[in-house]
Formats: sequence, C-alpha cells, structure tokens
Amino acid sequence: MALATAGETARKPDQIVGTLERMRGYRLEDLSIGQAAELIRIVAGDDLDAFAAVTGDDNPLHLDEAFAAATAFGGRIAHGMLLAGYISAVLGARLPGAGAIYISQNLRFRRPVRIGDEVTARVEVSTIDHDRGRVSLATTCRVAGKIVVEGEAQVMVQRRAAKDDPPGSSEA
Amino acid sequence: MALATAGETARKPDQIVGTLERMRGYRLEDLSIGQAAELIRIVAGDDLDAFAAVTGDDNPLHLDEAFAAATAFGGRIAHGMLLAGYISAVLGARLPGAGAIYISQNLRFRRPVRIGDEVTARVEVSTIDHDRGRVSLATTCRVAGKIVVEGEAQVMVQRRAAKDDPPGSSEA
Repeated sequence: MALATAGETARKPDQIVGTLERMRGYRLEDLSIGQAAELIRIVAGDDLDAFAAVTGDDNPLHLDEAFAAATAFGGRIAHGMLLAGYISAVLGARLPGAGAIYISQNLRFRRPVRIGDEVTARVEVSTIDHDRGRVSLATTCRVAGKIVVEGEAQVMVQRRAAKDDPPGSSEA
Repeated sequence: MALATAGETARKPDQIVGTLERMRGYRLEDLSIGQAAELIRIVAGDDLDAFAAVTGDDNPLHLDEAFAAATAFGGRIAHGMLLAGYISAVLGARLPGAGAIYISQNLRFRRPVRIGDEVTARVEVSTIDHDRGRVSLATTCRVAGKIVVEGEAQVMVQRRAAKDDPPGSSEA
C-alpha cells in the first residue's frame, strides 16, 4: 500500500507557505480553474479486507478469490467505493484540503480494479462560484492511463479572513 | 461497530430459499419496484482511523479531535465516503447482493455524522430496465430519522439462466 503525491520532491524554503496551506487546506481565493492534485495508491488484498470490515461490504467478489475467479472478472476486484475513497482523500488531504466541506459526488464505475493495480486519483478544479463559496472538481481514478472511475465533486471552501483565523473556524 | 439487517428475525424453513438468494444475490427476475433492504452501523472512532488508513483520507476533521473541536462541527465527523461505503454494503451484500455490478452512484452529503451515531443505510428499487439488465435504486443514510446522505445507484443485475449457473458466472 503506497501513498505519494505525484511529482513530490524534496522541500525547498520557498515551498514552506505551500506546505502550510496544505496542512490547513486552500482557501477560496487560492483556487483557480485547472488547478489539480493527485494521489497514487497500490491496491492490496488487505485493503479490500479492511474496507469490507469497516463498511460491512462483504460481497465475495471483493473478498473470496474462489468465488471471484469463477466470474468474468477472473479474480477479486476492489470495491468501487474504496476507489471513491481515494478521490475523497485527494479532496480532503490535498486540494482543497482540510476545511473543505463535501457537498456532493457523482461516480461512474468504468472498469474493474484488481489487487496490485496502481491507482492514480486526480481532482481538477472546473468551476468556482465565489458568491456561494462552492467549487466543482472533475474527479478521476486511472490505472495504466485508463479511467476506472470518473465523476464530479462539489465542495464548499471557506474564504480567507481579514485576520487569518484558525483552520476551519468559520465552517458552516 | 454493529452490523445487522433491520428487522432480521430467526430463520424459518420457508426462508431458506431467500437465504440462498441472499448468499448469491438476487437475479433480475427476482426484483420488483419498492423492494428495499437496510443495514445499520454505529460509527466508531476506530472506523474513522481505519477508513483513513485504507483510503489515505487523513483530513484532520475526521482524525484530530482538537482540530475538529475548533471547527463549527465541534468534534470529529465521519468521512462522507465511509457512509457511501455503507450504501455500497447494502447493494453488494443484500440487494441486489453478490453478482450485481456497480455502474454509478450519486451522493449528496446533507448532514455531518459523529462518532456514536447509528446510521441506517437503505436502498430501494426505483426502476428496472429488463432489456438492459439495469436497476436503479434510491439510496439513503439516516441518523435518528434524518437524511445524512442521499442519492441514486445504478447496478447491472444478471438474469436467471434456464439451467441455474454458478453465481456471477455470466457477468459482463
């Protein structure tokens, strides 16, 4: 199970502000259309077991190799909602990051994901409603360049206060 | 962390067919509009930690009590996608159950869910497309009767074969 920011490099002094913003999340004024973030994860069999335990989703297609091998999938596949969780992770941990409030998410499950697959979850800002503080993002998970999950997220992002207040203190 | 089928009672002999269908999932011909299933889970702090570990969603709103207490939420709240996982669990484990293929899911996150909340995830068949083998279900999570997550799922469900074949063997 690997977790990394795509293209992450050693931190330089001029990246400290960016690092702090990442810790507390971006504010509405910091966002622009086309801004994007990614996380990469490799799906492990243990992840499917853990996801089943925490959600109750014990469908044998995800857990039982003998059952899954007898289907057209030919083996265990990841829960679609685990992949959706990767999208949620990029939104909650990277862009917009901590403090953003999840309003909605549409998901279309395009292709099965197998144990060992490297999944790149990506979010990209598509619209910004400055009046309502709402941001839409195009969201995808890809394996070897092919889309496995796609959809759109809507999040509420707080504005930068005149005197910068503690993270999340003005959330609705 | 509790897992139960709402209204589940001791099994009687005439329920054995229903139990077998639950194990391998319902076929298209077994479904009817209005048919519904529920699962009930109580959100534990450990569940948020486990969901964060398996997805990478380490937003402090879900994990850090001090951070979350300083927000308008007043404490840690569940990942929205954990609740979506409960919906996925009802679809994958109860109705339609094993063999159903997840096509899409829309989610609207209405209210925060806190540690200790009892969440009832419910799916109810809303449309059946017999030609395409597609079924739509209204999906909700409720806490104390109030909707916390709502949306719609689309799944593909296999038809009953003339000679009943092994579970999932004819999946596309």
